[in-house]
Amino acid sequence: MSGEAFESREVRLARRPEGAPADATFAFARVRVGPPSDGEIVVRNTLMSVDPYMRGRMNAGRSYAKPYAIGEVMYGGAIGTVAASAAPEIPVGATVLHNSGWREYALLRARDARVIDTSKAGAEAFLGALGMPGMTAWVGLRVIAEVKKGESIFVSGAAGAVGSTVVQLAKHWGLSVVGSAGTPEKVRYLREELHADAAFNYHDGPVGELLAHAAPDGIDVFFDNVGGEHLEAALAATKDFARLVLCGAISVYNAVSAPPGPANIRLAIPRRLRIAGFIVTDHAAREPEFMDEMLPLIAGGAVKVRSTVVEGLESAPQALMSILRPDAHIGKMLVRL
Amino acid sequence: MSGEAFESREVRLARRPEGAPADATFAFARVRVGPPSDGEIVVRNTLMSVDPYMRGRMNAGRSYAKPYAIGEVMYGGAIGTVAASAAPEIPVGATVLHNSGWREYALLRARDARVIDTSKAGAEAFLGALGMPGMTAWVGLRVIAEVKKGESIFVSGAAGAVGSTVVQLAKHWGLSVVGSAGTPEKVRYLREELHADAAFNYHDGPVGELLAHAAPDGIDVFFDNVGGEHLEAALAATKDFARLVLCGAISVYNAVSAPPGPANIRLAIPRRLRIAGFIVTDHAAREPEFMDEMLPLIAGGAVKVRSTVVEGLESAPQALMSILRPDAHIGKMLVRL
Repeated sequence: MSGEAFESREVRLARRPEGAPADATFAFARVRVGPPSDGEIVVRNTLMSVDPYMRGRMNAGRSYAKPYAIGEVMYGGAIGTVAASAAPEIPVGATVLHNSGWREYALLRARDARVIDTSKAGAEAFLGALGMPGMTAWVGLRVIAEVKKGESIFVSGAAGAVGSTVVQLAKHWGLSVVGSAGTPEKVRYLREELHADAAFNYHDGPVGELLAHAAPDGIDVFFDNVGGEHLEAALAATKDFARLVLCGAISVYNAVSAPPGPANIRLAIPRRLRIAGFIVTDHAAREPEFMDEMLPLIAGGAVKVRSTVVEGLESAPQALMSILRPDAHIGKMLVRL
Repeated sequence: MSGEAFESREVRLARRPEGAPADATFAFARVRVGPPSDGEIVVRNTLMSVDPYMRGRMNAGRSYAKPYAIGEVMYGGAIGTVAASAAPEIPVGATVLHNSGWREYALLRARDARVIDTSKAGAEAFLGALGMPGMTAWVGLRVIAEVKKGESIFVSGAAGAVGSTVVQLAKHWGLSVVGSAGTPEKVRYLREELHADAAFNYHDGPVGELLAHAAPDGIDVFFDNVGGEHLEAALAATKDFARLVLCGAISVYNAVSAPPGPANIRLAIPRRLRIAGFIVTDHAAREPEFMDEMLPLIAGGAVKVRSTVVEGLESAPQALMSILRPDAHIGKMLVRL
């Protein structure tokens, strides 16, 4: 089996975007993958993840993660079936999660793949609420914000992959939840399906006014996926000792200049606020704890997994472009091969 | 002794200032103080503290501390000699520290005064490096920023009562220190007397450029006493996992509108920054630990106490006005009676 090789297509970064990515940002290539050397496997991908952080890696320059090189495959989370193996611990036919991204076949070291059990939660969950976005929500709430039962939280971008998990975990843990989102459909989803205590469309007026109306008693926690105007609005609404968790800033990923900063930042002193940015991969050691807690919540329905799935490798660039727009899909964006 | 009463003058808030306080902001009054009832003492003040936080309490509205009421005495730290006592635990003649502020004589409960021993450190120190400003520096560095030996710190307003203690503690603990201040004399003081590794006058150019030049390798910690432009400059200079401690914002206390916020705030995500405001009084339980550590540092000369002392109750308003200006005195401002 270890002698096999495969024809594969892959998606590469062709050039760095100025502002929003476009078709010309990406290039498709055909390559031959394999055979695997000792300790390696070849995976036939069946599901690929499309995540906002990928936009950040398309820029040159300093970031927490190495930027994609020009010509490099758009790596990221993916799930597939092992098609060839030269690693005794992962046999052909196993389902694995890995980070080799947008390609039909991936050659990787067995230690860079994780065998997953899709009997208790579907493969989609392992790229969503049970995967990186879910762990981002969990780390942000538990480790960074240290949320407590009875507190109130405001979640921006609450209908996205991370945001929708934040809302559900916070509700499950006994918090009062206000969510913002960018379309009426998402606001309905937050209210009716995720049972947020309040939700608003952030295009309906100044976010500060919408939030003051939705959370008149103030907030203990802010979980930001959107950036820009949301932070100033959240600062204004804070109670003493509030924690503001900066997770993402999807409203500005495509921006060519930074939006104004929060003019009310010095409220942090009298109100003793803590504002913290974080990156989920710093907390990888807590993944077993996260899995132990999250798997039963998903299996029992307390956390629902919602995805938008598009078909075919060629759909991946458009899928990424779409999640960077304010009218993006609900939940996790995936590409099925 | 408990039957005694005293003629006293005191300084009250006459009206709330718009912008900078002026003479008309304050009113002087003559009152009769005492005699003390059971458990009370009368203190003849000898040294009164003048602190930037007093400006915040002159505003109406929500803050961490109750604002001064119109007509209320400008309360704050003061030291004096007990002139009459109806409390057995504090005899006449004792030197006490209290918070009854700008008046010649103060009637207070004995439990609201603390007897101090001025044999190891002078009375001035108890209102400076060994008092509230010193504990503010210590809490900000040790509890909020959790500084470590070998780190680099940027201190804004580094020649003030809090800032000068931050600089000296940070040097003593093995950090590399950059300070900013508003006059050439203060910059010299930082370099030559406090042995800051670098120091600059923040009027000499954009703070971002001055800081980038003074700390080309970046900073692990920012201790902000100034606010405004300093925060954006510090954010730009942060290393990964830097902590930004917001302690004061003297540049904006007199402002009638807020300065622009830091447009680069979302650097907090990739760099995993933590921005925290704090109020020293939340940490009162740690005062014994602070005193145990600070007293030997002052007695041994590792932390030098520098004060500007003006004479007479009538000097207090001008002293407060002066410390709110960029060309303020060096070190702690005190009024001697």
